[in-house]
Amino acid sequence: MTQGLAPERIVRLERDAVVLLDQRRLPDEELELRCRTSAEVAEAIRELAIRGAPAIGVAAAYGLALAAARGEDLDTAYDVLVSSRPTAVNLRWALDELRAEPTAERALALHEAEVERCRRMARHAAGLLRPGSSVYTHCNTGALATGGYGSALGAIRAAWEDGLVAHVWAGETRPLLQGGRLTAWELEQLGIPFSVIADSAAASLMAAGEVDAVLTGADRIAANGDTANKVGTYALAVAAAHHGVPLYVVAPTSSLDPDTPTGAGIPIEERDPGEISSRFPARNPAFDVTPAELVAAIVTEEGLHRAPYTASLPVPVRSTR
Amino acid sequence: MTQGLAPERIVRLERDAVVLLDQRRLPDEELELRCRTSAEVAEAIRELAIRGAPAIGVAAAYGLALAAARGEDLDTAYDVLVSSRPTAVNLRWALDELRAEPTAERALALHEAEVERCRRMARHAAGLLRPGSSVYTHCNTGALATGGYGSALGAIRAAWEDGLVAHVWAGETRPLLQGGRLTAWELEQLGIPFSVIADSAAASLMAAGEVDAVLTGADRIAANGDTANKVGTYALAVAAAHHGVPLYVVAPTSSLDPDTPTGAGIPIEERDPGEISSRFPARNPAFDVTPAELVAAIVTEEGLHRAPYTASLPVPVRSTR
Repeated sequence: MTQGLAPERIVRLERDAVVLLDQRRLPDEELELRCRTSAEVAEAIRELAIRGAPAIGVAAAYGLALAAARGEDLDTAYDVLVSSRPTAVNLRWALDELRAEPTAERALALHEAEVERCRRMARHAAGLLRPGSSVYTHCNTGALATGGYGSALGAIRAAWEDGLVAHVWAGETRPLLQGGRLTAWELEQLGIPFSVIADSAAASLMAAGEVDAVLTGADRIAANGDTANKVGTYALAVAAAHHGVPLYVVAPTSSLDPDTPTGAGIPIEERDPGEISSRFPARNPAFDVTPAELVAAIVTEEGLHRAPYTASLPVPVRSTR
Repeated sequence: MTQGLAPERIVRLERDAVVLLDQRRLPDEELELRCRTSAEVAEAIRELAIRGAPAIGVAAAYGLALAAARGEDLDTAYDVLVSSRPTAVNLRWALDELRAEPTAERALALHEAEVERCRRMARHAAGLLRPGSSVYTHCNTGALATGGYGSALGAIRAAWEDGLVAHVWAGETRPLLQGGRLTAWELEQLGIPFSVIADSAAASLMAAGEVDAVLTGADRIAANGDTANKVGTYALAVAAAHHGVPLYVVAPTSSLDPDTPTGAGIPIEERDPGEISSRFPARNPAFDVTPAELVAAIVTEEGLHRAPYTASLPVPVRSTR
């Protein structure tokens, strides 16, 4: 069994701070960032010190618990945290989970449940791969992105442990290189053979028969299965469909948004053009929407879901309090 | 009429050196590199101080003329220059043109003829665009890539002067950012409105209706129209086909290789993985092959060519000596 990153190393609540591994510095430096107010947690999310839809939900939950412990105004803390990034629905889900009882215990339980959801969906997703598979993945969907274990990369890890994965292609994921920096770092630690590749080379890898499946995470899945995820996912989905390669979305139910009927209703974050070019005009959409018809299956902790997704997707877990 | 980069600024032969604008340093620094032997010219080509299929043909022609002037062994000089990069066929074409008469005058005439071919094909290609077009282009196919004026970017420039272009999307073109550095620099100088964008965002731009045509250059076009070009071109072609957006290849006849029947016969350069990642294993194919069926038209100085390309493509110009 391969060792992975411990959840408390990725993000945890201490007495006076939310402490997280600063993902902007990885893999060059492993530095912890201490956020002493909910506003500092929101800032860390906005600036991508922690990123990945489930992980920012967990961080926000800890942020609200910190706010409560510090006696901050909780409505303000909620608003600042929920608006730190617009696309991932997990942020709102996690804050709503914590709102009635914003304690350290509840936040930790939410974190542990997210990691457990990852383990369960990884087992479901691993069953989709045949032995000897070459798998392409995009952005980072490992332990760093979920607070532990991972979604799509968790599935790759589980499949690797089952002897199903021959090679992983890690799309570097411009502009911020979450694939080339974070996924590569996690795969190296897990001992899984991989190559980093330019995002634009994915289609020609598929044409050469070097990709058996594409696995990605999700930032928000609409009721009909349309999936918002890191920019470039849609390009992969189009290329995969052209080559008859299945694209699987692996995400916990905390990424489901049954209140948004289709992808057209998902807000797409536009980030600083300076992430693309420091000198010339640029556009920098951070996400795109893959229509459900290009998704071969969505995998949650509840199992495999196939089209039509409006009927097959489960409802997000809600605490009964 | 917009001013562009003067051909002699991009590459020229002086008495004792081939002098070129070092494209690795652009746009931050405008430095000239002096190559005093044919081997230094080959090194400059290999290390991408000058790049772009027609431009490296021109540089190699000057390199062979320099070798002759210096009394170098011409067979050796030819071999070193022709093998500096494997994919672009223009290198061999230009050296074959110069071999019988490797003089400064012949090399200059070849350079001037390439620029004139660019102007002619730009006029043909501009006619493909409707007024108000948003055009997506990849890599750099401007004056820098051809020794003057440009191929696909030359066509965009001609169309802009005709009032047909509303906006240019410049794909940044990982890993070496020829789009984000060089195309952006040329577009800025020409005063054409543009945005740099991550390569992986092209498909979602198309889905949003923000791309009316894709224009690219070519490093080598096989007899059947299969086109090798900068990695990512194939991904664009697949996405363009999915969205009903035409992809046009704009290249001089010096990029045609009638001796290679299909794209399967075109050697694809694998460059240093360090260009992708300095720390993790990586793959770095510099080119890919777009099958002819995804190309709406090929434009050369002879005009527009449509499928079936085996019948419609002209033969490369050959000097009659």
